[in-house]
Amino acid sequence: MRLRHKPWAEDFINAHPEIVIPNPEEVKGKWEEVFKNDNPLHIEVGSGKGQFVTGMAKQNPDINYIGIELYDSVIVSALENAIAAQPLPNLRLLKVNGSDLAKYFEKNDVDRVYLNFSDPWPKTRHAKRRLTHAEFLELYKSILVDHAEIHFKTDNRGLFEYSLTSMSAFGMLIKEVSLDLHVNMPEDNIMTEYEEKFSAKGQPIYRVEAKYV
Amino acid sequence: MRLRHKPWAEDFINAHPEIVIPNPEEVKGKWEEVFKNDNPLHIEVGSGKGQFVTGMAKQNPDINYIGIELYDSVIVSALENAIAAQPLPNLRLLKVNGSDLAKYFEKNDVDRVYLNFSDPWPKTRHAKRRLTHAEFLELYKSILVDHAEIHFKTDNRGLFEYSLTSMSAFGMLIKEVSLDLHVNMPEDNIMTEYEEKFSAKGQPIYRVEAKYV
Repeated sequence: MRLRHKPWAEDFINAHPEIVIPNPEEVKGKWEEVFKNDNPLHIEVGSGKGQFVTGMAKQNPDINYIGIELYDSVIVSALENAIAAQPLPNLRLLKVNGSDLAKYFEKNDVDRVYLNFSDPWPKTRHAKRRLTHAEFLELYKSILVDHAEIHFKTDNRGLFEYSLTSMSAFGMLIKEVSLDLHVNMPEDNIMTEYEEKFSAKGQPIYRVEAKYV
Repeated sequence: MRLRHKPWAEDFINAHPEIVIPNPEEVKGKWEEVFKNDNPLHIEVGSGKGQFVTGMAKQNPDINYIGIELYDSVIVSALENAIAAQPLPNLRLLKVNGSDLAKYFEKNDVDRVYLNFSDPWPKTRHAKRRLTHAEFLELYKSILVDHAEIHFKTDNRGLFEYSLTSMSAFGMLIKEVSLDLHVNMPEDNIMTEYEEKFSAKGQPIYRVEAKYV
């Protein structure tokens, strides 16, 4: 995603602690206190402008959602989306680096991970940065309940091919695969901003549900 | 594949026992006697008109190949291909039903299975007929060496999606995946008749290497 400098972003984010969680390391292991219930918690790593996670939170009021995004200039759009959708008590945003998840979540804190249109990092020497690399799969496992699922969508063929083999090599079950999601669009599919853009161009959207076994 | 009745096919097949193996149940467990060496044996289940298995046999003289096809009117084209390519001492054809493999091969007889453009059997009630159904994966396992691979190509998205999940559910490793084989065409790729036809139309060719673990 192209980043635009938004000098006002930081103040705006800080002014909304009810949505962008301040001091998240302090709620590790007690996320039910944030949401004031013990509903399942699904996180999206790399939530961008937040259309997906906001749509999911609206669609599924009995599941708690956290959209995770590092950049002020991007998460601020997700924050605007979340404010526009208020009241949405089951949605929070977290402005941290995906590789630091273990600072904010402990084993069994999270019930599912969503990855959508993640950066493909096409060069082999950058493979470790891909969000479906074995080190990330290990990281997610360390905060997820047992037998949890990762749901991943992308338009990037190379990243999707890599992800299938990476997840399989990690010992995960490839439970569901779609190689052209929009041909038989699931009724409950929530589109991301990228998904709308790329599918409008006729590019296939790939999707996998992979499960820790 | 559309079948044309070829009344001369049976006689032609019977006249070439040096290529289409007669009485194959008698060589179960002793295929090295047929090929007169103990090179690895790769089989293609559903070899159609034989362009793939003949091309592989030419490309890899130190591997033995058997193309398996049930229908007289189809295998006769593979036979004509094989005759035209003579001498090709590492190629044989087998006119049997793929579901009967265990009659002709025993455990460790086979080193690899190729499946190419297999019948998709799109209706759910026909799923057991798909050549990547669990029962077939079990059958292949019963004649393959341990840790063997299945290499599968198809243009059929539904069958490929099904096959990835079926192989993964069987406990196989999804080792390599290509979702558009001809974009980065491997130098050693041998095209089947279907592959030439469908890729010429711009349809993506899907390919997977899956491994028994």
